[in-house]
Amino acid sequence: MKIQYSTTAQHLGSSAVRDILKITQGKNIISLAGGLPAEELFPLEAIRDAYSRALSAGPSILQYGLTEGYGPLREQLVERLEGQGIPAAASGMLLTSGSQQAIDLLCKILLDPGDAVLVEAPTYLAALQVLGSYRADINIVLSDEQGMLPEHLEHQLRKLKPKLLYAVPTFNNPSGASWSRERREQVVELCRRYEVLILEDNPYGEIRFDESPDAYPPSLAAIDRNYGSGYGVVYTGTFSKIVAPALRSGWITGDPQLIQMVAKAKQANDLHSSAIDQCALSELLRGFDLSGHITAISREYRSRMQLLSAEIRSRGWEDIRFLEPRGGMFLWLTLPEEIHTAELLPLAVQQGVAFVPGEVFYSAQPLRNTMRLNFTHTPPELIAEAVSRLETALEQYRSQVSGVR
Amino acid sequence: MKIQYSTTAQHLGSSAVRDILKITQGKNIISLAGGLPAEELFPLEAIRDAYSRALSAGPSILQYGLTEGYGPLREQLVERLEGQGIPAAASGMLLTSGSQQAIDLLCKILLDPGDAVLVEAPTYLAALQVLGSYRADINIVLSDEQGMLPEHLEHQLRKLKPKLLYAVPTFNNPSGASWSRERREQVVELCRRYEVLILEDNPYGEIRFDESPDAYPPSLAAIDRNYGSGYGVVYTGTFSKIVAPALRSGWITGDPQLIQMVAKAKQANDLHSSAIDQCALSELLRGFDLSGHITAISREYRSRMQLLSAEIRSRGWEDIRFLEPRGGMFLWLTLPEEIHTAELLPLAVQQGVAFVPGEVFYSAQPLRNTMRLNFTHTPPELIAEAVSRLETALEQYRSQVSGVR
Repeated sequence: MKIQYSTTAQHLGSSAVRDILKITQGKNIISLAGGLPAEELFPLEAIRDAYSRALSAGPSILQYGLTEGYGPLREQLVERLEGQGIPAAASGMLLTSGSQQAIDLLCKILLDPGDAVLVEAPTYLAALQVLGSYRADINIVLSDEQGMLPEHLEHQLRKLKPKLLYAVPTFNNPSGASWSRERREQVVELCRRYEVLILEDNPYGEIRFDESPDAYPPSLAAIDRNYGSGYGVVYTGTFSKIVAPALRSGWITGDPQLIQMVAKAKQANDLHSSAIDQCALSELLRGFDLSGHITAISREYRSRMQLLSAEIRSRGWEDIRFLEPRGGMFLWLTLPEEIHTAELLPLAVQQGVAFVPGEVFYSAQPLRNTMRLNFTHTPPELIAEAVSRLETALEQYRSQVSGVR
Repeated sequence: MKIQYSTTAQHLGSSAVRDILKITQGKNIISLAGGLPAEELFPLEAIRDAYSRALSAGPSILQYGLTEGYGPLREQLVERLEGQGIPAAASGMLLTSGSQQAIDLLCKILLDPGDAVLVEAPTYLAALQVLGSYRADINIVLSDEQGMLPEHLEHQLRKLKPKLLYAVPTFNNPSGASWSRERREQVVELCRRYEVLILEDNPYGEIRFDESPDAYPPSLAAIDRNYGSGYGVVYTGTFSKIVAPALRSGWITGDPQLIQMVAKAKQANDLHSSAIDQCALSELLRGFDLSGHITAISREYRSRMQLLSAEIRSRGWEDIRFLEPRGGMFLWLTLPEEIHTAELLPLAVQQGVAFVPGEVFYSAQPLRNTMRLNFTHTPPELIAEAVSRLETALEQYRSQVSGVR
């Protein structure tokens, strides 16, 4: 039977990252491509205990639940976010299947085809996919190392009258960059002035490499709070990176009326997310030292990042630039202009190492000489070997290019 | 900040059933309104053991998983469906967050605004909501007690050239009706001939009140198999009614190419559903006698249905008609024409009993004198009291109506 797909289906891209993961699965390939946390650091025992407790309180946890999610976990999250200066109320807190679903549902209730949206370049690939599926008019705001450039942001706000600004201002995926406090304040102020909603996507914000308490600026949502009434920022987070991804538990918080509309969309989408996973997380938050766990994984990730960074620097590769991120999961390399990383990838995979070509993280005008390297998933003892394989692939690529041209 | 919602958001209805559930929560109300299974019958011990085993095999189950879902569970489902005569291949099997998500994602990849879709009247409310959110042109095919009327179906197929036919042919929600074998064959044949895809939604099909093996006709998907190549039917099912809803584990199976497109949509929607829940279900299917459990709950549900049915008959209410369903979870009442059940509901809630007014299950031209009663969730000892309260409300309603007119 011949199937005629919807216009939306025709605008659904596949994830380059997931395609690369599929290619590399089961092969002797060191993958720096995924965005995966380290399995060996998952608090498996504590999670198992939490599920056991969740399923010991009687059968009602197995029943259909509220679309908004398991009440006690929502309350714990509200308290946690309040502790981070983020305005949250139980009535404006919805649990989702990872923060991915939060992004999708928010776009669903806001965006008509052609609506303008502002993003950074580069930015989270799967957010670009979602925006593409709703046929948004995706526009870039230029950035430097401090974050979005206020002048260009204002230019775009004035010119495009966008519906939404989407950003990962803290340890961005893929660039690892983090906005300065001043830029955060300027972005919030400008979006307030032009009445443009911000979606702050913060999956990595707690993976911090500097342990001094004042090392990092507040979130956009916390800054927005200074404006008093109204919510200029919708904030989404997830347990995927600080506990484990398989629980698929994220949240979205903001203006209660807006969140109620997100809940309506979620109701039609899947009624609610797994109440067992949510109840287990609630139990975990009660007994387990999550802050201590986050500190421990952040130290290990910092150590892996430093190892990867040192390995790359030690090779003395010509004209390769990167900044060491101050948190998160990714190192972003800018290579010499003649190196197209998408063409480099097959050679690298042949050598037994994978990465994500930077071009997939751009909605337009990609920098083809960039790549994203993940440092959280690969065991430390394999990092030197991964960089050596990448080096071999680079040499092959250079000799091919000079041979052809 | 003033929010401008998308056209889709403006077409998102809220679920009347969930609104009623919210009103009745925490009050001394016997609710025949929900579509909830009996909590006291959940296999809680077996589920707890299954989670414990799922979390004992090492941390990799906690990692990000495939969008298609946990491999071993997909294979077990393929085998299970093959045993029911339903064509399924691992490559055409996707795990979803309940069958609700399956319906939503399929509609997302198929329907553009204005595309015609055929449904029964009455039909599953949340499917109507999904169709409404994609702004489908929803059209009714007339039915009798045997199922859709082939002449009217052919008329609609010819006139409307629909993209999809959606149906719950086995123990329909809300009507409890089940299509005869002949009608099933006719519907599949006609949709084949006019090349219209069928979405067969079968959440209740295993809750059977007649235990003889040949008591029930095959599913549309099994009948469609006789046509050889190609998949004319997409089939969705769920563990919500036969294990427990909170695991949010459903599936969709059909043409592998089509299912791959559904997977793309799911990737953008939420990456994947909870791998822990899926792994626990896979463990449950290994050790636990699921067939025996389904037989046990079906017997209990039949007994509750018979009790409810006997209670209603014993009252000798004038002109109230219903058929005893042969499975599923709902009894569908047709009352005298002058009784608008939506107006009856507040009186019933005042008396301490809730139901769902039938009108919400119609896309157009609702029969306002109908109501859906659930018999699975209310403990047997409360059923007589529930019917008495309904009787009081009916008497009040009749006296009000005769007073006004």
